[in-house]
Amino acid sequence: MPSGGGLGTTGASASACIYGMNKLLNLGLNNNELIDFARYGEVASGGSPHADNVAAAMLGGFVLIKSYNPVDVLKLEMPKFTTVLAVIRKSQRTTRGFITYEIGQEKLKEQMARCSRVIHAIHTKDIVEFGNAISVDHIAEPVRGAAIPSYWEIKQKVLEAGAYGFTISGGGSSVIAICNDDNSQKIEQIMKTGFNENPNFIQTIVTHNSNKGIVEV
Amino acid sequence: MPSGGGLGTTGASASACIYGMNKLLNLGLNNNELIDFARYGEVASGGSPHADNVAAAMLGGFVLIKSYNPVDVLKLEMPKFTTVLAVIRKSQRTTRGFITYEIGQEKLKEQMARCSRVIHAIHTKDIVEFGNAISVDHIAEPVRGAAIPSYWEIKQKVLEAGAYGFTISGGGSSVIAICNDDNSQKIEQIMKTGFNENPNFIQTIVTHNSNKGIVEV
Repeated sequence: MPSGGGLGTTGASASACIYGMNKLLNLGLNNNELIDFARYGEVASGGSPHADNVAAAMLGGFVLIKSYNPVDVLKLEMPKFTTVLAVIRKSQRTTRGFITYEIGQEKLKEQMARCSRVIHAIHTKDIVEFGNAISVDHIAEPVRGAAIPSYWEIKQKVLEAGAYGFTISGGGSSVIAICNDDNSQKIEQIMKTGFNENPNFIQTIVTHNSNKGIVEV
Repeated sequence: MPSGGGLGTTGASASACIYGMNKLLNLGLNNNELIDFARYGEVASGGSPHADNVAAAMLGGFVLIKSYNPVDVLKLEMPKFTTVLAVIRKSQRTTRGFITYEIGQEKLKEQMARCSRVIHAIHTKDIVEFGNAISVDHIAEPVRGAAIPSYWEIKQKVLEAGAYGFTISGGGSSVIAICNDDNSQKIEQIMKTGFNENPNFIQTIVTHNSNKGIVEV
């Protein structure tokens, strides 16, 4: 997996490091404390100690950051679904600084409704609704989508081919389609063809989501 | 119930009107259509055709407005809890125009997390978490709270007395405490005393939430 592909690899390594130190030094840290320490590893890659990736890497499933002071997270078990990733190396260090959070009344209301819908979809194990809810984002996607050539055209084709959802993976610039086993090959082909001209495109991967966080091997 | 008390009375009457017309004229409208028509009644009172109050009046329980074009709502059954209302007549027509939706990165992230927590709390029937999640709002509460004398001091006292949550009822200026039967009297007393000097204060009411929407009597 290339570093800088937006798949949370920096968060994964930071999490593994803190998890290991907690065990080796017998520190007895709980999950919130582990995540709070691990997120400082993200300063090296993204410039800010955000917990998004480390929380997901540490716990698996869907993790909501309830608060930062103190760090308090909620882990939800996700229903199983198929995912198609297009792994794309980022052309710039981070797009985080370009994101505007001043999105206006209508978009802010929709953004809040979509966050609510995501949680409802997880509780009702409704992957169609989950995919639908994550497929519009007024905050990160406009900025990050603009930095990925052909992003919007490919998104439209993938959704037309029956994907439940399509968005940018975390800090980007990899993208992720949520679908089922039946249409995953067709969707993989659309993404492979669509991103083929992009010099930063690495590969596509068909996989499944997981509720497992860190495991010792 | 006084009009302009922020308890959704305009939405209730608009909903009742459309519900009755649908029945009398045998229009066969579904819930989303009923709400879509009823919300135009809100233009008369609040200046905009928002669906917040009519949706709740029509369906009962907790209603999430998923989208406006077309109107699409999600009704969730709420667990039972005790509520204490302080009914306060609004001193101005509406505070809607004073609300800023440009709240900045940190507050926006917390606002999205709190919306998500509300839905999670409803699904897990966790009233403590529900109360906690609604007790911080970075959008309407700062503006509407500033228009209610002693709002913040009373809120602090009510929460210290064991209420699960405290916020402004919809468009304001009535306020609502979420609690249980055991501490509802104590909380009612704090609210009665606290708002007593407010010339617009009408009365306190101890009641329970309901999952029933419109009923024919």
